[in-house]
Amino acid sequence: MRILLTNDDGIHSHGLISLYKVLSMEHDCVVIAPERENSAIGHAITLSRPLRVRKINAKNFKGYAVSGTPADCVKIGLMALLRKKPDIVISGINVGLNVGANLIYSGTVSAAVEASIAGISAISVSQKLQKNMDFETSGNIINGLLESLKKVLRSQKILLNVNVPSREIKGLKITHQARSVSRESIEKRIDPRGVAYYWLKGFLVSPDNDGYSDESAVSKGYVSITPLHFDMTDYEVMKKLKNIDKLIRDV
Amino acid sequence: MRILLTNDDGIHSHGLISLYKVLSMEHDCVVIAPERENSAIGHAITLSRPLRVRKINAKNFKGYAVSGTPADCVKIGLMALLRKKPDIVISGINVGLNVGANLIYSGTVSAAVEASIAGISAISVSQKLQKNMDFETSGNIINGLLESLKKVLRSQKILLNVNVPSREIKGLKITHQARSVSRESIEKRIDPRGVAYYWLKGFLVSPDNDGYSDESAVSKGYVSITPLHFDMTDYEVMKKLKNIDKLIRDV
Repeated sequence: MRILLTNDDGIHSHGLISLYKVLSMEHDCVVIAPERENSAIGHAITLSRPLRVRKINAKNFKGYAVSGTPADCVKIGLMALLRKKPDIVISGINVGLNVGANLIYSGTVSAAVEASIAGISAISVSQKLQKNMDFETSGNIINGLLESLKKVLRSQKILLNVNVPSREIKGLKITHQARSVSRESIEKRIDPRGVAYYWLKGFLVSPDNDGYSDESAVSKGYVSITPLHFDMTDYEVMKKLKNIDKLIRDV
Repeated sequence: MRILLTNDDGIHSHGLISLYKVLSMEHDCVVIAPERENSAIGHAITLSRPLRVRKINAKNFKGYAVSGTPADCVKIGLMALLRKKPDIVISGINVGLNVGANLIYSGTVSAAVEASIAGISAISVSQKLQKNMDFETSGNIINGLLESLKKVLRSQKILLNVNVPSREIKGLKITHQARSVSRESIEKRIDPRGVAYYWLKGFLVSPDNDGYSDESAVSKGYVSITPLHFDMTDYEVMKKLKNIDKLIRDV
């Protein structure tokens, strides 16, 4: 397969290079990734300044560093840098899970969504944060997943968000995005000149233990595989609102 | 109602000030908005640097300018600046529609989604780009919508994405996010030193004319009201994938 690899941690991140290492043994891989870290960048794209591209010819991989966001990388890859469309875009391996409401903020996920908007299959992959992270298992899981999905990929487009727990893995689970709402906080500090500044602090995802959520699967030692789409319509509320159509007709 | 107003075009944008003007006649409004333009910023949040807040006491409104993204503004508003929770967050009025796949990139929409993640009702509102934009109609529509939804808002949280066509308005329609995929392009240029750079070019949304999409409603002169949620799970594919669960169990 022709694979476009990207991420949000930047082109020299260990997770991306590990993924390249595993996948390039069997596949035709090219890396197009942000030149710098882009965590929590969401689905930002760069419109107010031009993008620069730098060819990277490192010892362990070949690719392009882009002066933009993960979504920019996919756009410029598909529209300007690659001669042939890739069969799939893979984004990761992110340092830290992207589950529940968190995936709304994720540059890793947004790169995969961007590919999907362009009509190309995509997988985002994230791994639980721990000391001395080893991405080999995650790389092998993605490699195996590609093998299993080979047939499916021929007939339909897929968009999957994969999360890998720490080393002990019990199996794989098809999941939904956890409905848990994140709890977070902000820290106010005073600078040496006496002026306030604020830090957003990391957030905890409160548990969604219905057994089928990405978050609960990973917390129980399973790899979560969540199929995504980019339709944010709440169809249930849409049906309900039809009834108040009359109400608002007079606005 | 207590209303937190924000946007992605920046705190001094005409659309935001118009909204403040209309809504503050009947409601208790506070503006917390980015100090600069943040278009196409998606759901980015600022983690790598602290946020600064500047009190604004302008002739036509009071509020806070934040050195961050629309999502940052909502976070810092809810967690640090406001003493009481607002009843609703309203984001806009954006210059240009946010329909179809475009709303994935939209800072305007992301501010509303951010409020929803925090458990607060929210409306994002965008208006079709045209010469000499006048936001009065859009402001009145939102004002009327708040009046109509007053009862609903007491019992449930809502998240609505509203798009307003140009001046001639035929009515309101409850819609879904258009499934159309955007067509776009990139322009390669050469700088005076002979090095390439790339501009992302504006994209067109190809039509989704099922009559119930945001895009088709607006193109026919209706105000589109799309209920959103932040669950990106594709439940149909999720069901299908259950069948290939066995297949991938061996990965």
